[in-house]
Amino acid sequence: MSIRTGRIKISVSSVFDDLETIRKSSPLVHNITNYVVMNTTANALLAIGASPVMAHAEPEVAEMTGIASALVINIGTLSDPCIKSMLAAGRKAEEKNIPVVLDPVGAGATEYRTETAHRIINTVHPSIIRGNASEIMAMAEHSIKTKGVDSTSASDEAIDAAKILNEKTGSVICISGKYDYIVCNKGNDSIKITNGDAMMPNVTGMGCTASALCGAFAAVNPQYEKAAAHAMAVMGIAGEIAGKKAKGPGSFQMNFIDTLYQLNEKDIIQYFSG
Amino acid sequence: MSIRTGRIKISVSSVFDDLETIRKSSPLVHNITNYVVMNTTANALLAIGASPVMAHAEPEVAEMTGIASALVINIGTLSDPCIKSMLAAGRKAEEKNIPVVLDPVGAGATEYRTETAHRIINTVHPSIIRGNASEIMAMAEHSIKTKGVDSTSASDEAIDAAKILNEKTGSVICISGKYDYIVCNKGNDSIKITNGDAMMPNVTGMGCTASALCGAFAAVNPQYEKAAAHAMAVMGIAGEIAGKKAKGPGSFQMNFIDTLYQLNEKDIIQYFSG
Amino acid sequence: MSIRTGRIKISVSSVFDDLETIRKSSPLVHNITNYVVMNTTANALLAIGASPVMAHAEPEVAEMTGIASALVINIGTLSDPCIKSMLAAGRKAEEKNIPVVLDPVGAGATEYRTETAHRIINTVHPSIIRGNASEIMAMAEHSIKTKGVDSTSASDEAIDAAKILNEKTGSVICISGKYDYIVCNKGNDSIKITNGDAMMPNVTGMGCTASALCGAFAAVNPQYEKAAAHAMAVMGIAGEIAGKKAKGPGSFQMNFIDTLYQLNEKDIIQYFSG
Repeated sequence: MSIRTGRIKISVSSVFDDLETIRKSSPLVHNITNYVVMNTTANALLAIGASPVMAHAEPEVAEMTGIASALVINIGTLSDPCIKSMLAAGRKAEEKNIPVVLDPVGAGATEYRTETAHRIINTVHPSIIRGNASEIMAMAEHSIKTKGVDSTSASDEAIDAAKILNEKTGSVICISGKYDYIVCNKGNDSIKITNGDAMMPNVTGMGCTASALCGAFAAVNPQYEKAAAHAMAVMGIAGEIAGKKAKGPGSFQMNFIDTLYQLNEKDIIQYFSG
Repeated sequence: MSIRTGRIKISVSSVFDDLETIRKSSPLVHNITNYVVMNTTANALLAIGASPVMAHAEPEVAEMTGIASALVINIGTLSDPCIKSMLAAGRKAEEKNIPVVLDPVGAGATEYRTETAHRIINTVHPSIIRGNASEIMAMAEHSIKTKGVDSTSASDEAIDAAKILNEKTGSVICISGKYDYIVCNKGNDSIKITNGDAMMPNVTGMGCTASALCGAFAAVNPQYEKAAAHAMAVMGIAGEIAGKKAKGPGSFQMNFIDTLYQLNEKDIIQYFSG
Repeated sequence: MSIRTGRIKISVSSVFDDLETIRKSSPLVHNITNYVVMNTTANALLAIGASPVMAHAEPEVAEMTGIASALVINIGTLSDPCIKSMLAAGRKAEEKNIPVVLDPVGAGATEYRTETAHRIINTVHPSIIRGNASEIMAMAEHSIKTKGVDSTSASDEAIDAAKILNEKTGSVICISGKYDYIVCNKGNDSIKITNGDAMMPNVTGMGCTASALCGAFAAVNPQYEKAAAHAMAVMGIAGEIAGKKAKGPGSFQMNFIDTLYQLNEKDIIQYFSG
């Protein structure tokens, strides 16, 4: 399947402009997320200048989404009460027309996760779906199955899956990995981000952090494919800078948060390779 | 509304004496707290020498409170089962006459939080309520509403709210912010703490950590207004020392925990400005 | 009661061989664990090269255990729904014949914890039970009670309790503390590990991390007493190296994760004192 790259462009200044807007406006990002990453994603959102709030009780989620500028739904540690809350918050977000980011953590690993992710997509119509290659492939599985042997590599197959999922759902699809791909426009266009660091997969929750940052960028930029690309560029650039200072995943995590906080235009000019 | 400052005094030696008592007696502090900060508040309590325990299941909370020296209730990520546990643990704490600290995280943001905080106050009668200005104002809202335009600044308004809330509940009220205020004695007295660092709001859970430390200090000092003031002084001093070493919120958090652990009388003499 | 030490040996090369196997095979370790340590134990598992997954919803736990190489059950922040999930996952692990590690956090502190730990032992038959001295003594309590005044020290008493618990349950028993003891073979044999650092008790979740690492080592070594001993040796060695670089519990935690990631044969040769 063909897909165009390069028609939709992001740049140093578009990345930095959105980052500055986040810092100035401190958008409230409502996260219904997993217990593993609540602390680290809240800190990452604070570090880029956003205002995180974590709330997952059904009696309050709609009201909380009602005062937020974006909603991030992450299925990393699901439970039945939590699913109800995700759907209630998602409906409120649709009603208010604020962006919703879905992170289908572990989709494909269990039926419960795959089905819940599909249910959220069908009910809430996320603005952005961000996952790794296997999660995005799991979400597009039925269609991929019919493709037979067209795929020549896992990476191509993931992009094809993203194309199918974008066509079917209308959500911007973001696959993160060594390179990140953002697929949009009925599967016709993609943006490729080549920033990143080899240490990132060794720290838990970096994908979840990417989804949270997509929420913050989508809160200030209604072109969701660019918002996602800006978020992934900031993740990748901060990862590269932190990677240079890190001696392992512990110091990487600390330096990553520091770098998000300090990130300036000069850093983006030096590192951006999107 | 008038309030006296300076009549109740804390000092370098009163701060350090309580800290040393915590280090020697390792009081067990039972926390029913939010998922975002469980790890960081447990580490802060360990770092000052207290023994943290996190337990929130209704079948065990009363028994756990029964062996604790203080109870900290934090509504940051509420749920209905959790509220039941907070009330059950709180009743046990009252029965045992051990201090209870309430952190009404996000009161005012949703009805669910505001109502739950009121319900805990009415049922459990906390020794100390610690929040930021907007949370304390939300808790005293009805009264504030009737004040009309008396307030000339957010900060004055928050102190007035603390005064009203202290009069109404009998709980010591602690407002944290750039300066911290502890209000007591039927709204007649206050203690002001001016320590602190500009990086603190950039780290998630610093307010929750302050509440947890209030629990540890209240466990060793039955003059709860002084216990709260000592906790806030230790927070602020450790914040200033960590701030000098930090390059961002990541390294701040690490240095803050290290500083709590190392904090000695010389540091308190050098930094205390309460 | 007598117990042999020294008959079962571990060595620098047996520790390093297992570590290398974990790094090469990245075993999936399913954790149903407490909220305080989810982030730090996931990072520790990633740092030694394992693949952590945290999942606790009853509808998915059996399926998740079905694709895992080890299951770690930690009762640190229990709730009724969570107990159901632990039992369901545990039954699947038994059926699949993969190792189960039980960490009875806080057993003895409340009836709820002690009873739940017994219920898991009776239903799931863990391969390894790892706890501190008081937890292991609580689990063997009835028998200990009948021993009267035989014990001359807390440490001896804990080893006796481990002997009784190993005889009764068949589970390898690991007591962690200043020295770690692994008891096996119907209470006849033990392995003693003397590595470790005085800073470790000042960081929350180091015991939980030890249990998670037992899961990773058991996933690659069916001699569970050796797997547990290798895990405790790696914990202790990494602790000693991190301790030399740490200025407090905050920097200890960061250096500990870095050290697990970097740990090489030379380090093990230099530090191993098992």
